[in-house]
Amino acid sequence: MTFEAMWRDLHPVGRSTSSGGYFRQPWTSAESELRAWFAEAAIARGLELETDAMGNQVAWWRPSGAAGPSVLTGSHLDSVLDGGAFDGPLGVVSALAAIDVMRERGVEPTRPIGVSVFTEEEGSRFGLACLGSRLVTGATTWDSARERQDRDGVHLLDALDAAGLDPSAGLLSLEGVGCFVELHVEQGRDLVDRDVAVGLASQIWPHGRWRFDFTGEANHAGTTRMEDRRDPMLSYAATALAADEQARLTGERATFGRIDVAPNGTNAVPSRVSAWLDARCSSDAALAELVESISRHGDDRAERDGTALSVTAESVSGAVHFDADLTRSLAAIGDWPVIATQAGHDAGILSDAGIPTAMLFVRNPTGVSHSPAELAETADCLAGVEALADVLSELAS
Amino acid sequence: MTFEAMWRDLHPVGRSTSSGGYFRQPWTSAESELRAWFAEAAIARGLELETDAMGNQVAWWRPSGAAGPSVLTGSHLDSVLDGGAFDGPLGVVSALAAIDVMRERGVEPTRPIGVSVFTEEEGSRFGLACLGSRLVTGATTWDSARERQDRDGVHLLDALDAAGLDPSAGLLSLEGVGCFVELHVEQGRDLVDRDVAVGLASQIWPHGRWRFDFTGEANHAGTTRMEDRRDPMLSYAATALAADEQARLTGERATFGRIDVAPNGTNAVPSRVSAWLDARCSSDAALAELVESISRHGDDRAERDGTALSVTAESVSGAVHFDADLTRSLAAIGDWPVIATQAGHDAGILSDAGIPTAMLFVRNPTGVSHSPAELAETADCLAGVEALADVLSELAS
Repeated sequence: MTFEAMWRDLHPVGRSTSSGGYFRQPWTSAESELRAWFAEAAIARGLELETDAMGNQVAWWRPSGAAGPSVLTGSHLDSVLDGGAFDGPLGVVSALAAIDVMRERGVEPTRPIGVSVFTEEEGSRFGLACLGSRLVTGATTWDSARERQDRDGVHLLDALDAAGLDPSAGLLSLEGVGCFVELHVEQGRDLVDRDVAVGLASQIWPHGRWRFDFTGEANHAGTTRMEDRRDPMLSYAATALAADEQARLTGERATFGRIDVAPNGTNAVPSRVSAWLDARCSSDAALAELVESISRHGDDRAERDGTALSVTAESVSGAVHFDADLTRSLAAIGDWPVIATQAGHDAGILSDAGIPTAMLFVRNPTGVSHSPAELAETADCLAGVEALADVLSELAS
Repeated sequence: MTFEAMWRDLHPVGRSTSSGGYFRQPWTSAESELRAWFAEAAIARGLELETDAMGNQVAWWRPSGAAGPSVLTGSHLDSVLDGGAFDGPLGVVSALAAIDVMRERGVEPTRPIGVSVFTEEEGSRFGLACLGSRLVTGATTWDSARERQDRDGVHLLDALDAAGLDPSAGLLSLEGVGCFVELHVEQGRDLVDRDVAVGLASQIWPHGRWRFDFTGEANHAGTTRMEDRRDPMLSYAATALAADEQARLTGERATFGRIDVAPNGTNAVPSRVSAWLDARCSSDAALAELVESISRHGDDRAERDGTALSVTAESVSGAVHFDADLTRSLAAIGDWPVIATQAGHDAGILSDAGIPTAMLFVRNPTGVSHSPAELAETADCLAGVEALADVLSELAS
C-alpha cells in the first residue's frame, strides 16, 4: 500500500465535517480506530506488533540475522482539538512507507527497525504532553499519571479501560533501542524560506504549560456597581495582553489559548477564570524569566481588581539538544539544513532519556499547524519518505 | 406550612455541594422537581393549578364571590448557573406565605389572586431572559422560540419533551389579569444604605446581551512567531478591558462573564473567541452609545490583530417604568422607599404588555446576587411576606 493510499485511509478518521480539522483525542473512538489501522498496517507488512497498557505501539521489522541495538522511528496519531492532518500521522505513515521503499530497494538491515506510535503526544486530553513516551521512558510515573482526569472528570484508567486497553498490561520497553529518528511536518516556515523539502532538527526550545487561576467574587452583572466588583475576567484579560507584549519584546512565545470560566453565565460576574499559558523560549533562563514576568503582571492587576492569582506549573520541559554527532552524520546524507523548533515532541522525551535522537522535518507551505490549515505537499511528503528510507538504511546497516 | 418550612424544602434542590450555589436550569431534573413542589404546595392550599406547554404555572385562589380583574403575584424558580437561593424562589415562596397570612387574618378577597411561576427567567439555558413570560405575553413567538438551542445543541421542544411537558398544550392566558406584583430579593445595596427591609421598584434600566464573535487563525502556540499570528484572544481581552473602562467612565454597567473559545487547546492559538456582553444603562440612548463604543474598541483592536469582529444583539430590553399610580398607592401602605433596579424581571415583560405592574424588594445584606453569597435575613423575608400580604389585601379588596 502506497503512501498516498495510507493517507487516504486516514483522511476521514476523527475529521470534523464543519471545520475540516481533526479531533483525535487519545482513547476516543477516533484514536482507537487509528490504533487498529496501525495494527493492520503492521500485520500486512509482516511486522511484529507490540501494544502496551497505554496503547503505545511498536511494529518491528526484524530481518533474519538482524541483531544489536535497534533503530526506532515513528511519531504519534493523536491530534490537538481541531488539529491538522499531518502533525503526528505524517511521521507514522512515512515510517511504514520508508520500510516499503527499503524493501523495494532490496536493503537488508543488519539491525531491527521499529515503527513507534506514542499516545497522548499533544496532551490534549490529560493535560501532559508526550504522556505515552514519558511513561515508557520513566519521565513520568504511573502513580502520578493515574491521578489525572480529563476535562469531563474521566480518570486515565477509566479512559484506558473504555478504549479496550488493559492498564495492567505493562509498558513498552525501550531497552535495546540504539537510536530514535522522528519525522514530522515542520510547524514554521524555515524550510519554506530555505526552499528545501526536508530538514533536520538541532534543538527543541524549552517550553511548558502553566495554569493561571484568577479568583474573584460572582455577582449580578446588572446590579453590581463597577466599583464594587472583584471580576477575575478583567485580571485575566490584562494578563493575556501582558503575556503577548512580553513575548513580542523578547522574541519568545506566549499564548493563552485555553480558558475555563465559572459560572460562565452571561449575566453574572465570574467567580473564577482559569487560563493556560503556553510559553516557549530559546533558553531555560529566558523561559523562567518570561513566566515570572507574566505572573508579576497578573499579580499586579489582580491586586488592583481585588482578585487573587495562583499560578501552577503543569508541565515544564527544558531545552532538548538532539544528538550532535548523529544529526551531523545524517545531514551529510542529504545535505539537509539543520533548524531549531519551538514544538515539543516525543523525540525530546527519548533524547532526555539518553537515547541518541534526531528529527527530520518536511516543509509546510503555510507554516500553519495545530489547525485545519496545516499542510504538506504530496511531493514533499514523498521526499520525506525517501529521506527517511536513506536515514534508516544508513543507521541499520 | 410556614415560610421557613417551605424554604427548608427548597434548600437542597439543584444545590452544588462544592460551591453551595444552585443549578436550576429550566427543564432539568432540578427545575422539574421545583415545578412538582409548587404544584403540591398549591394543591395543599386548595389553589387551582394551571400549567402550560412551557411549564409556566399559576395557582389561583378564587374565594367564592371573588370576581373581576385578578391580582397576579409570583416570580420564578429557575436560577443562573451557580446562582443564589433567593433570586426567584423568594417571590414564589413569599406569595404562597402571603396567602397563608391573609387567610389567618381572615381577609376575604373580592378578586381572584394568582401565584405565578414563569420559566427560564434567567435565560441561563436558551439565552433569552424571561422566555416564559415573553411567550405568555406574546413578546416572543413560538415560531422564533422553537428554533432556540441550548449550549449542548438541544432544541427547546426536545427539552420540554424531556421534562414531561406537552409542547402542544398551549400557553397560559393573562386575560383578566388586572395587575401584577413581583416580590424579589434586592440585587444591590440601596435598602441596606437606607436601613429598611422592604422597598418598591420605580424602573428597570434598559439592558441587553450582545454576542461578540472574534475570528482569527488557529495555529501552533509554539512555532508561530508572535508577529505571524492572528489571535482572537488578544482582540477579546482588549475589548473586555475597554468595556470595563467605558462603563466606569459613564457610571453604567458592562460585563463579559461568558466566553466560548475554539478549539480551546493549551498549545493552539485560537481560531475563534465568542464572548457575551451584558450591558445596562440608565437610558436607552446611553445603552446604544455604550455598546457602540465597546464595539468600536473591538473593531479597532481586531484590525490591529488581523482578526475580525462581528457583534450580534441576542436580546435588548428597553427601559421599563413601573405603573406610577400603582406604585405610589402601594408605597403609602408601608412607607416604603422607591428605588430603581438594573436587573431584568418578568415584571418588566408584563409591564411592557400593558399590565399595571409593581415590584417589592427585600433587603440583601451582601448586595451580592447571581452567586452562592446572595442573602436575605429570615426576619427581612418575613417582613416581605407581611408587606406582600398587605399589598394583595389592598389590591384584591
